[in-house]
Amino acid sequence: MAERLYLFDTTLRDGAQTQGVSFSVSDKIAIARELDRIGFDYIEGGWPGANPTDDAFFADPPALSRAQFTAFGMTRRPGRSAGNDPGLAALFEAKSGAICLVGKTWDFHVKVALGTTNDENLKLIADSVAECGARDREPLFDAEHFFDGYKADPSYALSCLHAARDAGARWIVLCDTNGGTLPDEVERIVAEVAETIPPDRLGIHTHDDTGNAVANTLAAVRSGARMVQGTLNGLGERCGNANLVSLAPTLMLKMGFETGIGEEGLRGLTHLSRWFDERLNRVPDRSAPYVGESAFAHKGGLHVSAVARDPRAYEHVAPERIGNRRQIVVSDQSGRSNVLSRLSDIGIIAGDGPQVDKLVTLVKQREFEGYAYDGAEASFELLARRMLGQVETYFELLRFSVTDERRFNARGELVTESEATVKVRVGGEVVHTVADGNGPVNAIDNALRKSLLPAYPVLGDMQLVDYRVRILHASDASAAMPRVLIESADIRRDGNGDMVRWATIGVSTNIIDASFDALGDSFTYKLFRAGVPVA
Amino acid sequence: MAERLYLFDTTLRDGAQTQGVSFSVSDKIAIARELDRIGFDYIEGGWPGANPTDDAFFADPPALSRAQFTAFGMTRRPGRSAGNDPGLAALFEAKSGAICLVGKTWDFHVKVALGTTNDENLKLIADSVAECGARDREPLFDAEHFFDGYKADPSYALSCLHAARDAGARWIVLCDTNGGTLPDEVERIVAEVAETIPPDRLGIHTHDDTGNAVANTLAAVRSGARMVQGTLNGLGERCGNANLVSLAPTLMLKMGFETGIGEEGLRGLTHLSRWFDERLNRVPDRSAPYVGESAFAHKGGLHVSAVARDPRAYEHVAPERIGNRRQIVVSDQSGRSNVLSRLSDIGIIAGDGPQVDKLVTLVKQREFEGYAYDGAEASFELLARRMLGQVETYFELLRFSVTDERRFNARGELVTESEATVKVRVGGEVVHTVADGNGPVNAIDNALRKSLLPAYPVLGDMQLVDYRVRILHASDASAAMPRVLIESADIRRDGNGDMVRWATIGVSTNIIDASFDALGDSFTYKLFRAGVPVA
Repeated sequence: MAERLYLFDTTLRDGAQTQGVSFSVSDKIAIARELDRIGFDYIEGGWPGANPTDDAFFADPPALSRAQFTAFGMTRRPGRSAGNDPGLAALFEAKSGAICLVGKTWDFHVKVALGTTNDENLKLIADSVAECGARDREPLFDAEHFFDGYKADPSYALSCLHAARDAGARWIVLCDTNGGTLPDEVERIVAEVAETIPPDRLGIHTHDDTGNAVANTLAAVRSGARMVQGTLNGLGERCGNANLVSLAPTLMLKMGFETGIGEEGLRGLTHLSRWFDERLNRVPDRSAPYVGESAFAHKGGLHVSAVARDPRAYEHVAPERIGNRRQIVVSDQSGRSNVLSRLSDIGIIAGDGPQVDKLVTLVKQREFEGYAYDGAEASFELLARRMLGQVETYFELLRFSVTDERRFNARGELVTESEATVKVRVGGEVVHTVADGNGPVNAIDNALRKSLLPAYPVLGDMQLVDYRVRILHASDASAAMPRVLIESADIRRDGNGDMVRWATIGVSTNIIDASFDALGDSFTYKLFRAGVPVA
Repeated sequence: MAERLYLFDTTLRDGAQTQGVSFSVSDKIAIARELDRIGFDYIEGGWPGANPTDDAFFADPPALSRAQFTAFGMTRRPGRSAGNDPGLAALFEAKSGAICLVGKTWDFHVKVALGTTNDENLKLIADSVAECGARDREPLFDAEHFFDGYKADPSYALSCLHAARDAGARWIVLCDTNGGTLPDEVERIVAEVAETIPPDRLGIHTHDDTGNAVANTLAAVRSGARMVQGTLNGLGERCGNANLVSLAPTLMLKMGFETGIGEEGLRGLTHLSRWFDERLNRVPDRSAPYVGESAFAHKGGLHVSAVARDPRAYEHVAPERIGNRRQIVVSDQSGRSNVLSRLSDIGIIAGDGPQVDKLVTLVKQREFEGYAYDGAEASFELLARRMLGQVETYFELLRFSVTDERRFNARGELVTESEATVKVRVGGEVVHTVADGNGPVNAIDNALRKSLLPAYPVLGDMQLVDYRVRILHASDASAAMPRVLIESADIRRDGNGDMVRWATIGVSTNIIDASFDALGDSFTYKLFRAGVPVA
């Protein structure tokens, strides 16, 4: 029987300290529901009394089916009783089954930040924890700056933990608040603490300031801690908190612990991680451990042929176990086996004949010219299918012209205007359109849509969502080659609630030309995937 | 005397496996120079013989002053002699002082990937390493899949290392190729290896598939390894390699090792990390350990006043030691000291009067609008000097117009042409010029030069060397804001043989408009630095 480990999510509290992140009440409700569904044991919702969002959230929290909903707050202030402290009163008013109290354990902070004596601090901890129990809340104690405190004065730091333990704290959580402690120190110190605090009441809370938040958590667990605090995708102040999405698979698949999320929750992790980023409008980290889009991507040619023979040769766990998938990348590094396996991924059975050789040569040539297909899968698919005669010509560009002007208008204001004309053959007719836009690419996009929409109304369902430009061979300015990447997306979400996205590429000495090619591929790809007949 | 640790950078080889990253030859040259300047001991440039980019790079590598330039390749193939193996031959042709050979140490891979016997594999290793030494290259051995191999068959895995050691490998590098090994296993296994491989010939190479690449590296160093392989910003296949930018400060400041980069190199780390991302047009990770913009950010309230009283209370190291800055969020004071320190960086003594307040407000407003002065020091300097009345108006743009056309020419070929007209007031006269170019930015550049050169011949000495565009607010496609960064350089090198470079920025809804602003700043900066009088 595997040993049980408890996962405590503080995304909505400590994660809210992330620069650039702010949760609305409806964000908090949606996120708490997802955290509960996947099976985290504790969900810390925020700090009631600290801001209006958290007050509103705790006044009417979502009904959770499995997780213990937790409020965060501070031990009582010096000079107040636990029954008469405004901070604690706000916590008792909040609707939560558990209360996590943070308190000082570093003598330096007791003096500098709290302005009181070491003895008084012990009373603050004991009183506050006991009061939570008396009010029928499960009390937890976050030992702030514990590792720095322990290094400065181990016996005082321990006496703070003992005060919380004796007052009935269910969990005593050792916090590396400044994030500077290294794994070997964590392992040693937690082992020493575990001599007087039972491991099944011992938790760990780490920060990533040296890039060791995950390792510090694992080190604490090896020394006995059985509760792990962290956040989704490692959100948090400064460099972030320990990333629960990275930790859960390691704790379960490699260290053999049982957690509340189970095998099924584990398979939901990749979706949860990406859903969360999308909810916050953050770009998901492709290289995130276990759940990143690239986490099981294979690029080198040698690797790819071996992976095809036996995935264990190059994968430390099976991607399906965390709901991720294997990905074979096409690039400069690649050989035949890469290209073949990419083709079969997109459903092209090309055999292994001379056409594949031709495609490999073509891909290598294009990449030497500056194309980068591993960021532009849709353009790769079109390249392959065109070579195999599987994509029709939906439209033919005869010419375009774009003019950008900056001048003073009649009111003496400096204005910039872009206007594009496009002449296209579509459905046997020559269509000539003009449109303006915010910049030349937007103007061309508008003019091209105008000319194609009557024949292909389905193009109204897509939009340009990202646009990136890089100059290649920058040392030779006069022959600089812009490489343009365009990401497009359907306006409507698919059956799983995901936004369908695709990326296309263009390379030319002229940035507008390169943009036009990427845009043309994007429209063509949409028409091809929609199965629209040629007009 | 601190113990010496060697840093081996493989950004240009293993980092090139990153999805979405592809280095041009000029990228490789620029990056190798920066790596050398900061003081890494080894710079692995790529795999000669594997692709045209690496062939070109190794045919004419940059002159390095401190680092050992290293080529990567594989041990000879079964059935070939070391003197007659096409892979090794490409390595011997490449211009590098060291060769890092990867070889198998996991019996499973010897059979599945290499298709040979365990004994034959030992000969491949020994022969290939010895041949490198015979050809006067410093041989290094990358023990691929070492940790998995050791767990499967410790005695065979060790015998592979011994074959490399006995054949004269300067360093034997233990690779956790699949990235699935945990820190406690690394620590134990490296300690066992160190019994028969001297620590001063033992290296470590880890991947971040469980979020433990940094911790695994530290664990190996604790067990004796004295060379560390990794990449800038943790680039690399799948979840990336060990991040040297996170590792160096921990190894030096917390573990007390001496490295080639020294105190001064350490202070350059923040800049190097951001410069590298800008070069690749990647968004720098705000929460990166040590060097992220948020790594020393403090939110308002109690916390801030405690930090002000004693930074040690909330900071695990002093940010200045790695060239980073403390950031107090939502506080004028922080912006002030930030701006003051940037002003003194560029040699402006601004005092501390109301002009600094005005500049702080202006910079904050500009950054809110999307300007990012971290990558555009010349524009920042112009902004500051203009406010202080220290830069004159060398020319005044009255209007421009650019047209890009793609059409079939008289011979039926598809051609794209860009033509720009510019009307400028310079030297009391209105000059109206027209020019064409490779794309709209080049056309504007040409037209503007044509109008300014008669008054300012010194502009003939500079050229545009890099051009990058990023779209801000990408979620709202119609209001997307392009941010353009232009890097310019003097055609002639300065007294130290360096090319003087400067970067400028423009932001506008119109990409051409943004490019024009960046270009205008670039010309103005050149004129200002050259001390040319206004025409």
